[in-house]
Amino acid sequence: MTETSTPISLGQKPEELLDVVGIGSPLVDVIARSDDALLSRLGLIKGSMELVDLDQGDAIYASMDATLEVSGGSAANTMAGVASLGGKAGFIGKVATDTLGDVFTHDITAAGVEFEAVLAGPGEGGTGRCLVLVTDDAERTMATHLGVANSFAPSDVDDALLSRTKITYLEGYLFDLPPAKEAMRQAIALTHGANGSVAMSLSDSFCVERHRNDFLELLNGDVDLVFANEDEAMALFGAKSFQQAVDAFDETGVVAAITRGAQGSVIVTPAGILTVAAAPVATVVDTNGAGDLFAAGFLYGLTNGLDPEGSAKLASLCAAEVIAHLGARPQTSLAELAASQGLLEP
Amino acid sequence: MTETSTPISLGQKPEELLDVVGIGSPLVDVIARSDDALLSRLGLIKGSMELVDLDQGDAIYASMDATLEVSGGSAANTMAGVASLGGKAGFIGKVATDTLGDVFTHDITAAGVEFEAVLAGPGEGGTGRCLVLVTDDAERTMATHLGVANSFAPSDVDDALLSRTKITYLEGYLFDLPPAKEAMRQAIALTHGANGSVAMSLSDSFCVERHRNDFLELLNGDVDLVFANEDEAMALFGAKSFQQAVDAFDETGVVAAITRGAQGSVIVTPAGILTVAAAPVATVVDTNGAGDLFAAGFLYGLTNGLDPEGSAKLASLCAAEVIAHLGARPQTSLAELAASQGLLEP
Repeated sequence: MTETSTPISLGQKPEELLDVVGIGSPLVDVIARSDDALLSRLGLIKGSMELVDLDQGDAIYASMDATLEVSGGSAANTMAGVASLGGKAGFIGKVATDTLGDVFTHDITAAGVEFEAVLAGPGEGGTGRCLVLVTDDAERTMATHLGVANSFAPSDVDDALLSRTKITYLEGYLFDLPPAKEAMRQAIALTHGANGSVAMSLSDSFCVERHRNDFLELLNGDVDLVFANEDEAMALFGAKSFQQAVDAFDETGVVAAITRGAQGSVIVTPAGILTVAAAPVATVVDTNGAGDLFAAGFLYGLTNGLDPEGSAKLASLCAAEVIAHLGARPQTSLAELAASQGLLEP
Repeated sequence: MTETSTPISLGQKPEELLDVVGIGSPLVDVIARSDDALLSRLGLIKGSMELVDLDQGDAIYASMDATLEVSGGSAANTMAGVASLGGKAGFIGKVATDTLGDVFTHDITAAGVEFEAVLAGPGEGGTGRCLVLVTDDAERTMATHLGVANSFAPSDVDDALLSRTKITYLEGYLFDLPPAKEAMRQAIALTHGANGSVAMSLSDSFCVERHRNDFLELLNGDVDLVFANEDEAMALFGAKSFQQAVDAFDETGVVAAITRGAQGSVIVTPAGILTVAAAPVATVVDTNGAGDLFAAGFLYGLTNGLDPEGSAKLASLCAAEVIAHLGARPQTSLAELAASQGLLEP
């Protein structure tokens, strides 16, 4: 691999605009420690995310140990991370007017993210929740009841935020929902029409298996920057080795940020490929949010003058913060943390 | 002070009964990091607990940073701790049939506590919540909206759990509510009538100031075991020094477990006074729950054959676990933790 530090080119936008706008399912995470036996009994595949209906969700919740609740949602976590770094972030997602909706709205707003809430009508259901089971190896397994986020639709996407952002960040999970998939295509068109770039997370290797063709098509000009972990990257190209997946990304011409847990990350850019070490963590408690916060650091870096290597180092630090505690949102100021490590100006 | 290890005498109960039943306000804690400036702006006194109405609570919540939600309530935290140690615990408190009530009920039940839920009627209001602001010095400042717990009344206390327990544990906070105060007196009578002992936490030094005479009267035969921190102990007796408070407790004839933060604890018993060191903590994150979990360890120890010194060591370990993370409930099995430290049989 060739080392490089050439900045990725971004569309030119006036200074006052947003760095990143995320689109995804607003969720409140309901987190409990679990053992492998419980995952088996519940029929959940370790490390994966499965969509469940309300009854299935209730049954899983009833089997779970005492929980803690923290606002979550993959793209929303990423936007909270961008804001915690001092970036200007926005988020678009659908919530109900209920307790969990209030919690989600409070938390993303308090994090400093401009939230374009799509409000569900009466009778549409409740705000989404994600049951997160964390095993002793710090792996997280998720059962998500999307609630009203299930009906996120093209009409919910307008250009109020998307015409103002340098990058629009899409959650791959949304491709599980046909109307949301259409909404994503609309968001891509609006963003590119306003001279912005589009980033996407592959979210989950099972999600990639379900939508491989859609995702591969998106690499032909729709998506400019892809976030994936090793499994997702390999699943996307049906690769037999990690190197094969890296080479396949390299051929597409998009920028790809591929995370490998403790082995760090590999950044593929048209100007070259570079590897960046993981930031040290004393004790890994809960890997939930690792990818989301990696994306936060990388997106903040790219939109705030860092080169890909500096962005990836910042990304690794953000991921390290979030896996050291339960919950997928930062529990400290990432801007201060990054400054203390010399990765950002104080 | 004289060292002692004489066990405290407890009423004789058949083996299958409960170790401890707690009575208190069921709350869900809504936790955020804060700075001193925000506490000042909100008019909150650092380290204290203040009762607020719904509007005041909403205004404080709107000013708070992104939160995490964890079941709380002082006596409920203690019961969760007793259960996590492997003890048989019960809890009595009033909740509404709403999201927070569901969360509280799920979590205390999942913790293994037998929950006698007093269910509010329609229109009585919502389940209580406690806004917890944690400053960088790990101190917690609380604004509690009791919700339906505000109307906990004597008719809510029956002997279903109280006739089966070795110890009934009362939350001092309840003395802020006239009907609950009466309910406490009824619980004391039921417990003593069934040959159990009564323990009480003094909860908060401002709470002690408000109810000093009531609390002092309770030491004349109503309460057998008191939990207090240094400030609360001194406030109770209007003591000018910590030693004065210890001597005053010694004269009452009740057992007193007095915590002093990093300075450990002092246990006053009719058989002598002993001091126990605090358990080491790498980083104190949030002192919320320190007293509650100290009480859990001590109550478990006393009801499971440990002497006061062994109980206090166990208590210190439980407190150390809970202050190392955000939230006032244990995040690991206290039984396993205690076994790993040689304080309980594996």
